[in-house]
This record gives sequence, C-alpha cells and structure tokens, in this order.
Amino acid sequence: MSALRTYPRFVTVEGGEGAGKTTVLHALREALSAGGDDVVCTREPGGTPLAELIRGLLLDPGHEPAAPDTELLLMFAARAQHVRMTILPALERGAWVVSDRFTDSSYAYQGGGRGIDPARIAALEAAHVGIAPAITLLLDLGVAQGRERARGRDAFPDRIEAEQDAFFERVRRAFLARAQAEPQRVHVIDATRPADVVAEDAVRALTAARGRA
Amino acid sequence: MSALRTYPRFVTVEGGEGAGKTTVLHALREALSAGGDDVVCTREPGGTPLAELIRGLLLDPGHEPAAPDTELLLMFAARAQHVRMTILPALERGAWVVSDRFTDSSYAYQGGGRGIDPARIAALEAAHVGIAPAITLLLDLGVAQGRERARGRDAFPDRIEAEQDAFFERVRRAFLARAQAEPQRVHVIDATRPADVVAEDAVRALTAARGRA
Ligand SMILES: Nc1ncnc2c1ncn2[C@@H]1O[C@H](COP(=O)(O)OP(=O)(O)OP(=O)(O)O)[C@@H](O)[C@H]1O
Ligand SMILES: Nc1ncnc2c1ncn2[C@@H]1O[C@H](COP(=O)(O)OP(=O)(O)OP(=O)(O)O)[C@@H](O)[C@H]1O
Ligand SMILES: [Mg+2]
Ligand SMILES: [Mg+2]
Repeated sequence: MSALRTYPRFVTVEGGEGAGKTTVLHALREALSAGGDDVVCTREPGGTPLAELIRGLLLDPGHEPAAPDTELLLMFAARAQHVRMTILPALERGAWVVSDRFTDSSYAYQGGGRGIDPARIAALEAAHVGIAPAITLLLDLGVAQGRERARGRDAFPDRIEAEQDAFFERVRRAFLARAQAEPQRVHVIDATRPADVVAEDAVRALTAARGRA
Repeated sequence: MSALRTYPRFVTVEGGEGAGKTTVLHALREALSAGGDDVVCTREPGGTPLAELIRGLLLDPGHEPAAPDTELLLMFAARAQHVRMTILPALERGAWVVSDRFTDSSYAYQGGGRGIDPARIAALEAAHVGIAPAITLLLDLGVAQGRERARGRDAFPDRIEAEQDAFFERVRRAFLARAQAEPQRVHVIDATRPADVVAEDAVRALTAARGRA
C-alpha cells in the first residue's frame, strides 16, 4: 500500500451501479475546466482502445463465465494499460485526471462481491498499478435504489449487473470499508439526494480537498 | 515456487516460434492414447473460449500495443481461465493434459523477451496459477532456423512473431535457464533434427519420465 504514488490531480469517482458516477463526472469536469485547467475524463474498465476491448470481454454475458481470478486479472490488465497509456501521460503534463471507477472498484467487486482476499488485490495493485488518486468521491446508495436508476438507463444488464442483490450488498459494504480505512482520501457522498444536490456536494468535496493539497 | 502443486500427468511442450511444438504435441497424443489413456491436448494462450478471445487481444497486431505489464496480466488472465476450466478438470478425472506452452513461456517471453523481473512473474504464478507440469519438453532451436520454419507456415506474423531477432535470442536463453534451474522437470530436446527424430525423442523422454513417476 505504501508503495503507491499519490498524484494530487488524480481524482476517482466510485460507487455501485446507478449511483450517479457518470453524472457527477460531468459536473466535476465542468467545475475543473471553469478554472482553465486541462481535464481528462476517463473510465474503468477501459480508457484506452485495448482496455475497452478488455472491458468487452469482462462485461459481455455471451461467452463462458470468467473464473474470479480471470476477472481479477483482466481488470488489472485493463488498468495497467489505462495507467500507462492514458492516466500517467495526462498527469505528467499537469492535467487533472478524473476517472469513473479505479482500483477501489476491484476491492469492492472482485474483493467484496466475488470474495477474493484483499491481500491478493493489494499485491496486484502494488506490482502493476503503482499509483493512487489523492481524492476519491464515493457515491453511496442503497442497492435497490441503484438498480432502479440503472434499469431506467439500459434495457440489458451486462455480466456484472446481472448479479444478485446479496452481491451488490457486499460491494457496497466493501466500498464503505475502504472509506473508513482511508477517510483522508475517500469522501462518502449521500447519493440518495437529487442529482444537482449530489453534484454540488461532489464539487464542494473536490474543491475542499484541492485547497488542502 | 514451492507453493505450486505438480501433477504427474500434466505435460507441457515449450520452445520458440517454429521449433516444432505443435508437431510434437500430435506425436505425444498418439503415444499416450495408444495405451488407452484419456488425453487432453490444449494450448496457450488459449484452451477455453474466453482464453482464446484473450489470445486474440494479445496477438492481433491491429490495435494499440499492449504495455509489458498489460501483456503479462493478459497472459495470466488467460492461464487462470485455462487452468480452472480445462486443465484441472481433466487432471482431476485422471486424464493426461498436454499443453502447447504454459508458464515457462511467460518467463521466456515476458521475462526474457520483454525484460520483466522474473520475481513478478513468480508472484503471479504462485497467486493465480498454483500448478506445474511434472514434465516439460523444451524444443531448442536457433532463432534463424525457427523463423524460417514459421515463415513456411504462415504468411502474416502476429504481434509477437513480428519482434526482432534479439528479442528471440533472449527468449531462447530464458528457456534454457529454466531448464538449467529445473533439470528434473525440463528436458531439452535438440529440435534442429528431422521432425520424426525429434518426435521420437520427445516420446522417449516422456516415457522415461513417466516410468520414474
Ligand atoms: N442523484 C440522482 N437522483 C436521481 N437520479 C439520478 C441521480 N444521479 C443520476 N441519476 C440518474 O440515474 C441513472 C444512473 O446514473 P449514472 O449513469 O450517472 O450512474 P452510474 O453510477 O454512472 O451508473 P453505472 O454504474 O451503471 O455506470 C441515470 O439515468 C441518471 O440520470
Ligand atoms: N524437426 C523439424 N524439422 C523440419 N521442419 C519441422 C520440424 N518440426 C516442425 N517442422 C515444420 O516447421 C513448421 C513449424 O512447426 P510447428 O508448427 O510444429 O512449430 P511450433 O513450435 O508449433 O510453431 P509456433 O510457435 O509458431 O506455434 C511446420 O511447417 C512444421 O511442419
Ligand atoms: Mg456510469
Ligand atoms: Mg504451434
């Protein structure tokens, strides 16, 4: 964990399905761009052409199921590519990088959801990712409410969205445990409120954290 | 390394491009089947529908290049799937499994070829593979000769075949270092000789190793 390098302009948005991550991302981009800063918005799994192809393998429910270890390694393969091709080049030229999901999602989904030992996730993080966001906004929402919002958005669930409620309860608990372990970095935002209130809160949390940086 | 479980009926065939691995695999299958044994022949990267899709991402030279860590993690994602879905089920019902490449290829290509620290490969092997073959046949051949044979076979090189000779020299040396480190498991076979002589030698090495098992 201590092997990770933290970048002050690296921001991640986390939370379960339909929590409002993508909606918040737009608000953050607007707020940061308003100051004239260079902002790169990206997402996981994905964020480069090859990583998006890996995303396709992860989420397409058509073929045989991925074993938990396979899913974990595919996530980290996509992340390794994303970090090297997109995130680090942007940070190194001084841009902000705002990512819709990052390593916390692996702890939540592959760790909490699939039951993989967090120590195995930490080993991959240290060996193949090596960087961490300075600020993470965790949008917290009940599973049923998230499902309802996501249902409104797309008709066909992907391989992970098709999981049972108990899976998403474990995901939510693992996210909250991450926030409890790193309260300096992870800001929990009550995502049950209307979208504009949530977005305002997210921008405020980012601005405050930025001020302390 | 000591964390790996060795299966007496798990056999792998290794070597550079065009060394004759696939040719030898057929001979081994015939020899083992002749005794009435159940034999599963498979290959890496690949060996399951999902792992074959990962193979496609690894070898298709169309899209952006994979960073070395991405390539390494994709190889191990495919291997994790292959072990769980194909290799272990076959071994556990008592079949022989003969695989065209396995973890030694990661030490040779991603380690020797790409320069990744072998300790990082060993960490992935221990955490996500967990098994090792009892017998490995390493077909050793000069780089130029292998290239010539492979050229005879396919017109368009894949992303790894398109590498320079220096890359393949490092691959060859890494394979030979593996054999030197584990002479009990890895049998080096001079693959410069005619195909039928090489195949005979491979079958003999397998039979001898089997007798000792
Ligand atoms: N605070 C909110 N209140 C009500 N609806 C919201 C709120 N935030 C977002 N929505 C709506 O809920 C749906 C899901 O939002 P969004 O796509 O931003 O979530 P997400 O966390 O990115 O989901 P996913 O994990 O599936 O990508 C969208 O239709 C969006 O307009
Ligand atoms: N001992 C040999 N002498 C001459 N030619 C050979 C020999 N073994 C195989 N070949 C020929 O060389 C070519 C490559 O052999 P093969 O496909 O078995 O190698 P390979 O190691 O599986 O290659 P790749 O790594 O590309 O899969 C084929 O055309 C095959 O017929
Ligand atoms: Mg989204
Ligand atoms: Mg072959």
